[in-house]
Amino acid sequence: MRHQAVSNALVTIRIDQHHPIHASRLAPVEVRPVAILRSPFRERFGIPRQPGLVPDVPGTLAFVPPYDRPEAVAGLEAFSHVWLLFRFHANPPSGPTLTVRPPRLGGNERVGVFASRSPFRPNGIGLSVARLERLEQTPDGPVLRLRGVDLLDGTPVLDVKPYVPYTDLVPDASGGFAAGDVACLPVRFMPAAEERLWQRADRDEVRRVIESVVALDPRPGYRQGDPESERTLGMRLYDFDLRWRVRQGVAEILDLVPDVPAA
Amino acid sequence: MRHQAVSNALVTIRIDQHHPIHASRLAPVEVRPVAILRSPFRERFGIPRQPGLVPDVPGTLAFVPPYDRPEAVAGLEAFSHVWLLFRFHANPPSGPTLTVRPPRLGGNERVGVFASRSPFRPNGIGLSVARLERLEQTPDGPVLRLRGVDLLDGTPVLDVKPYVPYTDLVPDASGGFAAGDVACLPVRFMPAAEERLWQRADRDEVRRVIESVVALDPRPGYRQGDPESERTLGMRLYDFDLRWRVRQGVAEILDLVPDVPAA
Repeated sequence: MRHQAVSNALVTIRIDQHHPIHASRLAPVEVRPVAILRSPFRERFGIPRQPGLVPDVPGTLAFVPPYDRPEAVAGLEAFSHVWLLFRFHANPPSGPTLTVRPPRLGGNERVGVFASRSPFRPNGIGLSVARLERLEQTPDGPVLRLRGVDLLDGTPVLDVKPYVPYTDLVPDASGGFAAGDVACLPVRFMPAAEERLWQRADRDEVRRVIESVVALDPRPGYRQGDPESERTLGMRLYDFDLRWRVRQGVAEILDLVPDVPAA
Repeated sequence: MRHQAVSNALVTIRIDQHHPIHASRLAPVEVRPVAILRSPFRERFGIPRQPGLVPDVPGTLAFVPPYDRPEAVAGLEAFSHVWLLFRFHANPPSGPTLTVRPPRLGGNERVGVFASRSPFRPNGIGLSVARLERLEQTPDGPVLRLRGVDLLDGTPVLDVKPYVPYTDLVPDASGGFAAGDVACLPVRFMPAAEERLWQRADRDEVRRVIESVVALDPRPGYRQGDPESERTLGMRLYDFDLRWRVRQGVAEILDLVPDVPAA
């Protein structure tokens, strides 16, 4: 017997027919952002696929009404890290996704969507941990200053929860890739890029963010020896367009071309 | 300047006025369960407040159409643990919640909802880790056999994600209570309860579940010496009503009274 249709009064899931589930349990519900994340990442290309890879990348979480009140985050400063439950809002709409091709597997192998952290997933909800550097009270409400953010600027956040080591840190957990599996390119700033950097007050942070992002080599599936693999790449970051290329295994930062300000 | 009204075309969040956020980013979206969790917990009372406290409690996750396909979980067996993003479906509807009184703080102190894992929260989405004991393929689709489940039977699950130690296990995280902070009562099975147990094929598992739940002393805010604190308590579990009391610091399991089967 398959699951009965959802329109029936009771949905019997074979593993427990004695305690049937009412179909209303499967009804859709509406969720609404409680906060918006600001980050240096202005486009999806180049965003590291996991937050642990970019511990320096800053993010700022600002709450929206009615949650922009100091009492909503009272006590959060006792925690070193937070979970963000967020919407993968930049995904084009699509039908139900059962399998995905994770970039970590070269983009060719398919795995189940529930065996991956892919953004292309039912309900489009992501889960990411960030370090809580500071909790600020501003006239516009509380703001969380975060580090280790792997999310697009403007990401709508559905919930913020403290990372509770007692339950969230699972010492014997295994699976997925390990720290040693992540290849890193050496990064060299070329003179034009160095000059741009020196004109910025936030140069130290921007340098670290560029280094950590480019070192992870976000080029999509290039093969070594492919002449295409050395072409100049671009990525929008902060208020500039980052230009770089990879030559003989070294990432060369060519320039930080300022954004044309929006009219 | 406060946040502009959400109905405006652009929402400017003070921390980055140069990159305004379009108000559509704050629009509600619909989410829909992908699976239903079955657990021994038939009511909220008595459910341990964190999954790490009850490593033996079993749970079974069954997917609903269109996600009840083997390919949707292909590769998940490589992971030891999974995240469940679920709906706190048993909560009565209420207005926006800014603060909660966590039971861990005695139920008197208020903290911000975003500084807690309380079920009473904006969007009502919970996050819980479980050990993936086995991935089974059944004629009705894949079923995850889980351990360490702290969720009500019939909980609608919005997403399943692998626990990736590289990013989810944060070795230097701090905050919240620690393992040593959790008091445990000794548990003694009285003769009537022993006899009920021996009539069950699943007695070993049921015994462990009862022990781990009762040892955590789910009595709401009793004080030692209060005569009320020794009265008999009841909790629906599996297909019985568990009866126990706490006497001189020992939890005495009195009986496992069978459910009257539903007509």
